[in-house]
Amino acid sequence: MGIIVVNTKAYKEGMGKNAVKLAKIMEKVGNEYGINMAIAVQPTDVAIVAKNTSIDVFCQHIDAIDYGSYTGWISPYAVKEAGAKGSLINHSEHRMKIEDISKAIKIAKKIGLEIIACASNVDVTKAIACLNPDYVAVEPPELIGGDISVTKAKPSIVKNAVSTVKKINSEVKVLCGAGIKSGEDVAKAIELGTVGVLVASGVVKAKNKEKVLEEMAKAIK
Amino acid sequence: MGIIVVNTKAYKEGMGKNAVKLAKIMEKVGNEYGINMAIAVQPTDVAIVAKNTSIDVFCQHIDAIDYGSYTGWISPYAVKEAGAKGSLINHSEHRMKIEDISKAIKIAKKIGLEIIACASNVDVTKAIACLNPDYVAVEPPELIGGDISVTKAKPSIVKNAVSTVKKINSEVKVLCGAGIKSGEDVAKAIELGTVGVLVASGVVKAKNKEKVLEEMAKAIK
Amino acid sequence: MGIIVVNTKAYKEGMGKNAVKLAKIMEKVGNEYGINMAIAVQPTDVAIVAKNTSIDVFCQHIDAIDYGSYTGWISPYAVKEAGAKGSLINHSEHRMKIEDISKAIKIAKKIGLEIIACASNVDVTKAIACLNPDYVAVEPPELIGGDISVTKAKPSIVKNAVSTVKKINSEVKVLCGAGIKSGEDVAKAIELGTVGVLVASGVVKAKNKEKVLEEMAKAIK
Amino acid sequence: MGIIVVNTKAYKEGMGKNAVKLAKIMEKVGNEYGINMAIAVQPTDVAIVAKNTSIDVFCQHIDAIDYGSYTGWISPYAVKEAGAKGSLINHSEHRMKIEDISKAIKIAKKIGLEIIACASNVDVTKAIACLNPDYVAVEPPELIGGDISVTKAKPSIVKNAVSTVKKINSEVKVLCGAGIKSGEDVAKAIELGTVGVLVASGVVKAKNKEKVLEEMAKAIK
Repeated sequence: MGIIVVNTKAYKEGMGKNAVKLAKIMEKVGNEYGINMAIAVQPTDVAIVAKNTSIDVFCQHIDAIDYGSYTGWISPYAVKEAGAKGSLINHSEHRMKIEDISKAIKIAKKIGLEIIACASNVDVTKAIACLNPDYVAVEPPELIGGDISVTKAKPSIVKNAVSTVKKINSEVKVLCGAGIKSGEDVAKAIELGTVGVLVASGVVKAKNKEKVLEEMAKAIK
Repeated sequence: MGIIVVNTKAYKEGMGKNAVKLAKIMEKVGNEYGINMAIAVQPTDVAIVAKNTSIDVFCQHIDAIDYGSYTGWISPYAVKEAGAKGSLINHSEHRMKIEDISKAIKIAKKIGLEIIACASNVDVTKAIACLNPDYVAVEPPELIGGDISVTKAKPSIVKNAVSTVKKINSEVKVLCGAGIKSGEDVAKAIELGTVGVLVASGVVKAKNKEKVLEEMAKAIK
Repeated sequence: MGIIVVNTKAYKEGMGKNAVKLAKIMEKVGNEYGINMAIAVQPTDVAIVAKNTSIDVFCQHIDAIDYGSYTGWISPYAVKEAGAKGSLINHSEHRMKIEDISKAIKIAKKIGLEIIACASNVDVTKAIACLNPDYVAVEPPELIGGDISVTKAKPSIVKNAVSTVKKINSEVKVLCGAGIKSGEDVAKAIELGTVGVLVASGVVKAKNKEKVLEEMAKAIK
Repeated sequence: MGIIVVNTKAYKEGMGKNAVKLAKIMEKVGNEYGINMAIAVQPTDVAIVAKNTSIDVFCQHIDAIDYGSYTGWISPYAVKEAGAKGSLINHSEHRMKIEDISKAIKIAKKIGLEIIACASNVDVTKAIACLNPDYVAVEPPELIGGDISVTKAKPSIVKNAVSTVKKINSEVKVLCGAGIKSGEDVAKAIELGTVGVLVASGVVKAKNKEKVLEEMAKAIK
């Protein structure tokens, strides 16, 4: 079954009450079409969204820290206790050191958080797959927030990411993202071998969020 | 009126349910002694603590970002909407670029978040005071988490910080921190001219948190 | 006497042999017009430029480190031994943590390196002046590399930076930069109260570097 | 043929004139025993060491930047022009973002710099091997600068790193480091399947550098 992950970034339209509203629309559409829906929110919004909806809530980032003296860093343990199913890490807007990616994934596994690790290209996708995340999301940074979907602009990157990961660590699932805006984009992503998409402005900034999500849900089914 | 700010860091004893428990003890002691109590928590815990207690809730960090494409960074707007009164910034465990300190303070002012900016020494205290935070907390890093209070080990740093800030920007209030563990430490901090203390393990890791807080509250009154 | 500081960044035209060539042109023009000329180069180019010319050589950055286990960070001691007169720090392309700016300046003072610390606005200029660098260079980042000089686009920032620094720490000299390209820009900078300019592409990318430098030298005299 | 790479960090004993002296000792011992010797120095020291000795000179770090507006970052192009054979990257004292490791290696390949990328454990070694450096140096951080060699304390990490890299990218050579101090440590490193060692204080801080290097050279032969 496919998955649609919506990243609300620091968009006004996906923060606080708006995050809850969006998550409820996702819940409705997800139930209607039998699709997995997940929302990746600001750390402050994890608890409120998890409490008010049944969809999977991800944090947008966790830091590679244990319990201890780490003022102001995002604790995986706190994220878990707040009700998160998992977390994005290494988003193109928040790149991480390779050792921290490795450590964050290990901590997450230990406490039962799912990790979606982002990667800009096939090489990095392969490298990250060696570190055992649950998902790798391949997103060419130059296409993020743009008008042309990665599935149209660079289908070969998605395809190669899928086949490379299959060879190196077949337990890791592949998502793609960047410029995803329509059902057609999502259909193409599935066709290229991914299990779903990571989408942000295409949903969060859409005038009619429900309609866009429905179109995507139909396509992924 | 003096203020006691408790920083829960990423301590297990100050996270999630434990953060709420601790905040309730602080609320009780604060009311009893007529003392301002504030707790600085993980971003994920801001909402739950703000909802369940009446004391001031601070986030442990905010990033210097507006609304927009900033995946995984801590949005001041989200922190505000979650119910925070303000935020720590530039803690010794999370130092910031000087331009980001400046920008974070400007955003915070605009949206009504109070800022407690940390500084390691008198020079940096002075520099940060130029950037108009609500509070500067002077904390020599080598004493943080240790057994000797800054008020005993380096009273001259605290005194100089107070007099320097008075000269350069008298609207900025001064706190001190590092190794604060007892009522005596707090009394000395007030005597040196601060409006209160920033304390972490001294309260969060104490066996009898209520007793330590009471002792501090008596001293600060 | 005025000063022109040329920052070669990582431009091909200001690297290695090209850095030496440019420094020799600066030396010639400086001598001709009796103007202080300084070049800020890649760390790898400090020694070769210092050896082959008589103008002041600055490194583009130093890290806030003492002798010790700091692999790959730029040691102030190594920069000094290589023949540098000083270093830029906190350039808009390389912002630093406030505590590191403070520490880097202290180390530099101790070993006799002059520090030019960059700042984006008047507040940060004031804050950095508290940390006792030799120079503050005010450079609004949005004008760096552009076609309109800071002296035309934002003369009030330069003027306010000068008067603020005079009040807070009169031993600190003020430079300005961003978009400086002509003798007219330099003349205006001096008129606004600075001791000179920090310039990059305006000289390094100029077809006729000597002519641009001569024009600037005439204006600063 | 084995290789000994000496990292001078920001040690006084390996900086400036001392770097040249050390490199000359390495040259002498290398020639005597027919051993590859390489020294990884501060960026400011690349040119002077390359000019005065025949051994391979590495920079301790390069940044993942092309030509352009990157003030104060270490340009691979400048490092190459200064005479470097290659560079260390991702040392435990200077960790890099995964995308920057990928980009730095690509730039280095293009311009003919050899890359030694450091890794703390087997997982990260594997991930980095996917990014095609010339060497991976496995160095458990907790043993760096200590008294017990990685080859004694954690031989299985070295062995597993070697076999993992062989499987995933057999063109990548493996080094090991951390606590290497004697000929015995070097002999063990070779026995475990590495092509050599990355050593720092064990040589740079040794009273008799020549003797230590001779002992290591005999062992590696």
